[in-house]
Amino acid sequence: MKTIFSPRHAGHSGNLELIDGDIVPAFEMPSRAEFIRARIEEVGLGPVLEPAAHDLETAKKVHRPGFIDFLPQVYPEWEKTGRSGTAMPFTWPTRGLRGDVEPKTIDARLGFYSFDGGATFVKGTWDAIKSSHDAALTAAGLVQVGERAAFALCRPPGHHAGSSFMGGYCFINNAAVAAQWFLDQGARRVSILDVDYHHGNGTQEIFYARPDVQVINLHADPMVEYPFFLGHADETGAGAGEGFNHNFPMSFGTTYDQWAEALEEGCRRLTAYAPEIVIVSLGVDTYEKDPISKFKLTTGDYPKIGRRIAALGLPTLFVMEGGYAVAEIAVNAVGVLQGFEGA
Amino acid sequence: MKTIFSPRHAGHSGNLELIDGDIVPAFEMPSRAEFIRARIEEVGLGPVLEPAAHDLETAKKVHRPGFIDFLPQVYPEWEKTGRSGTAMPFTWPTRGLRGDVEPKTIDARLGFYSFDGGATFVKGTWDAIKSSHDAALTAAGLVQVGERAAFALCRPPGHHAGSSFMGGYCFINNAAVAAQWFLDQGARRVSILDVDYHHGNGTQEIFYARPDVQVINLHADPMVEYPFFLGHADETGAGAGEGFNHNFPMSFGTTYDQWAEALEEGCRRLTAYAPEIVIVSLGVDTYEKDPISKFKLTTGDYPKIGRRIAALGLPTLFVMEGGYAVAEIAVNAVGVLQGFEGA
Repeated sequence: MKTIFSPRHAGHSGNLELIDGDIVPAFEMPSRAEFIRARIEEVGLGPVLEPAAHDLETAKKVHRPGFIDFLPQVYPEWEKTGRSGTAMPFTWPTRGLRGDVEPKTIDARLGFYSFDGGATFVKGTWDAIKSSHDAALTAAGLVQVGERAAFALCRPPGHHAGSSFMGGYCFINNAAVAAQWFLDQGARRVSILDVDYHHGNGTQEIFYARPDVQVINLHADPMVEYPFFLGHADETGAGAGEGFNHNFPMSFGTTYDQWAEALEEGCRRLTAYAPEIVIVSLGVDTYEKDPISKFKLTTGDYPKIGRRIAALGLPTLFVMEGGYAVAEIAVNAVGVLQGFEGA
Repeated sequence: MKTIFSPRHAGHSGNLELIDGDIVPAFEMPSRAEFIRARIEEVGLGPVLEPAAHDLETAKKVHRPGFIDFLPQVYPEWEKTGRSGTAMPFTWPTRGLRGDVEPKTIDARLGFYSFDGGATFVKGTWDAIKSSHDAALTAAGLVQVGERAAFALCRPPGHHAGSSFMGGYCFINNAAVAAQWFLDQGARRVSILDVDYHHGNGTQEIFYARPDVQVINLHADPMVEYPFFLGHADETGAGAGEGFNHNFPMSFGTTYDQWAEALEEGCRRLTAYAPEIVIVSLGVDTYEKDPISKFKLTTGDYPKIGRRIAALGLPTLFVMEGGYAVAEIAVNAVGVLQGFEGA
């Protein structure tokens, strides 16, 4: 399996995030991607290639165009106020406040287009976002021309980014852009299977009213786990999208046996939908030793996930999402890919 | 004029706020209220009395009951997580995310019930919130029994607090609770005139669909000034409340002559509504030397505001809102009250 990876992700480095009443160095850091890249080379998964540049027209079909136009403006606008360091919002248009009128100042626009203080900017952030987006589309191109599977080693990740909001380390929703691109190439149905520990709230929100992208999410119960405000089992889609969104919220302490039951049911529904392509939003923060997550999957479980996905028998695009910078993240993420390849 | 003031406000002290990509000591601090109290005594405005205790039943008519129940739980729940310092949220249910399902954890609930990181908690915060609420209702009681006017020297302030959100240093909307209380005592129509530099987004949101409370806001244009996501001139009310919300957004650099034109038009609409009582949300951050605001009112202008409000000829409750801890804030706030009294 080929991996698409851009060294430009490293420009998104040294940024801070808001969490637990404090501003701290972002947990989502460059070493995450570098660990995974090193592991790919260590096990000989396949070549690691740089992405080709892609325009943002597809991204503007799944995101509000003003949101995509805003992202490269953030850091220059932040600097114009005389500030340096990390750009982050401080006020948000929650329920009861207007989400239809975009204010003019940088602080207001940061809040207007986000849901937390976790998607933050330094000078190199936009370039990293763009390179991550390009990695997803380049990997999608490999699948489109006949590769059985490809791995977009995206950083920053994407599944918390919605049609007009960033958050949770995510800016452009790489998996959603890839899904749209496959449709634009002629696919009629695409499934996104999100196995990250955290609910892919952005992916759900983007496709919630659409029948052409099925979204399946396996994740920690949003009543008690980030991102909290979406991901309940009763969210099944709206309008033309009714029946095409599937959430499997699970309790703290979930083991692989329990988790695999949800995966099995998700795969059953995926097969029933009969997509032409499956996109896997790959997070391995379901791991028992993940420092901030509370599922109990073990290293030996990840190849099983890959084998189950391979058994779907569909062209498959893996898109990297969350998980923290511990050495095991690389073993586990690559373990899924090795399992897919038959290891 | 009698002032109602509780020393218990001082328990809300030492808390931090999120602003401009940083966490800093909150600008809204105890000395604000103490400056004003000292000025009241200096000029001999009238007696300063402590509030009587009031139950929270009226507050639960203008706020979602679960929100009011949550406020005293915040700091104990925060401490249960092993954290100390300042309790503040880090993720919010913005558009596209669910505002109808309240999650269970303290971090999620802080975000669920707020729109920024500016309404933060330390150990004494709830007691201060309650004492501020009690001050508003005690002062309202003086007006109800026949005093021409009373001043609720509330701290923390209230006008950014909506039916189910806190933010901008505000928790319970003291002016809104007082308006509801007057209605419950038999008034048919109450007007709230908000002269704070910042839009009273919470007050607007609470009464937006109601005809029994007219809300008039004079403030900096939300396209460029906090709280940004509400306060445009086209927001005139909804449903039964259509026509009872009046916004006067103004540009940076507005002088008293310009500001007074909006006040005059607001007073004209107020008189046309024919309320039985007027509640003034009193902020003096319209002052030319306010460190974070951009209007150009001078100290000599504030008594004129008081005289214009007195000319309405209505029983009047002044409720303290914003303004920063500079010495002039006290002179200006008390200047409004002195103007009202005929000085």
